[in-house]
Amino acid sequence: MITVALAKGALLKDSIICLKTAGLDFTTLTRPGNRQLTVSSSCGRARALLVRNADVPVYVAYGQAQLGLVGDDVLREHPLELAHLVDLGFGGCRMAVAVKQSSPYRRAADLPAHCRVATKFIHCARTFFDSLHLPVDLIQLQGSVELGPLTGMSEAIVDLVATGQTLRDNGLVAIEDLFFSTARLVGNPLALRMDRGQLQEVVVAMGHVVRGYSLSP
Amino acid sequence: MITVALAKGALLKDSIICLKTAGLDFTTLTRPGNRQLTVSSSCGRARALLVRNADVPVYVAYGQAQLGLVGDDVLREHPLELAHLVDLGFGGCRMAVAVKQSSPYRRAADLPAHCRVATKFIHCARTFFDSLHLPVDLIQLQGSVELGPLTGMSEAIVDLVATGQTLRDNGLVAIEDLFFSTARLVGNPLALRMDRGQLQEVVVAMGHVVRGYSLSP
Repeated sequence: MITVALAKGALLKDSIICLKTAGLDFTTLTRPGNRQLTVSSSCGRARALLVRNADVPVYVAYGQAQLGLVGDDVLREHPLELAHLVDLGFGGCRMAVAVKQSSPYRRAADLPAHCRVATKFIHCARTFFDSLHLPVDLIQLQGSVELGPLTGMSEAIVDLVATGQTLRDNGLVAIEDLFFSTARLVGNPLALRMDRGQLQEVVVAMGHVVRGYSLSP
Repeated sequence: MITVALAKGALLKDSIICLKTAGLDFTTLTRPGNRQLTVSSSCGRARALLVRNADVPVYVAYGQAQLGLVGDDVLREHPLELAHLVDLGFGGCRMAVAVKQSSPYRRAADLPAHCRVATKFIHCARTFFDSLHLPVDLIQLQGSVELGPLTGMSEAIVDLVATGQTLRDNGLVAIEDLFFSTARLVGNPLALRMDRGQLQEVVVAMGHVVRGYSLSP
């Protein structure tokens, strides 16, 4: 039996469409009122494990799931030994540096040394500012990162931007992108080496789906 | 103007009752449909900042809020320079080690060396197992920690237990407590030193509330 780790939240709907097109039907997960964290596919070949975004790479790396669907932002923030299999294309968003609209800074390199930057993505932000040779004081927050500049706690933020609506609502503006992120299919390296064809079949089918279909029209 | 950081979630209702009894009315925060992250008290003396649990100590430590109400579990997990002012008594829960009901282990010290323990509270768990001189492989998860033993990823978990219902629902049993946690009033040390009586007044009133009233009957 194949176990697939799926991320709760924004990627779930397209993940389930993508898997269904590839032959694994987990649509029971999206039924209103569903509270189950594991469900079997209608064909009985696989089960899905519904977990938090950041937990997907953990379950796959430890082998409790052989495959996982998760955003590239999460994979970059929590680097673990995983096989990166398919860029699924959906869930596009960018990791960006943003400041108040009234801020004089228009590039990340303009930010003053040792200024404060609030983020949920400490590892990504550290890597980025290190690459600029710009020492900043990173403040780790769990939510509502836009409050950092609004309360005067930080000069800037590093956060995911999809439509940009949250930034606009809070009077912030993105000034530089760290990277563009999309959903990815990842696998447990050992499980892939020991595979007798079952996993490979899913991986190939997912690749066909991505090349042949447009999700979320 | 005093700013008070409040934790979203389980502690919010009692935090607001407690503050109201002490003279600061933030009940607009609990109105259905409220989406504001900052509100002023009805008396105009203070404003509340509604943030994630783990962000309360951050806003208070950086001085964006002079006071904060948050669980002792969060303060232990994210140790920052804060003044611990009042034990508010509500929000009682325990941080516990739990295993499958079918597990042979009945004390934390029974767990085999280098076994896996899943937790959201890496710092608390590390401190506890270090005190037992028991080396374990801690796996950090963001949610649904009970899936650790259920999927076979970990032998045990370290997690907050309030009623114990989640453990029972998942066939787990708590075998040892790390500590008992309640909500606390914390303050920014510098703000308290510079205080001209405003903060002290709130702190004293909160102390009286705790000694005189029983919240959440």
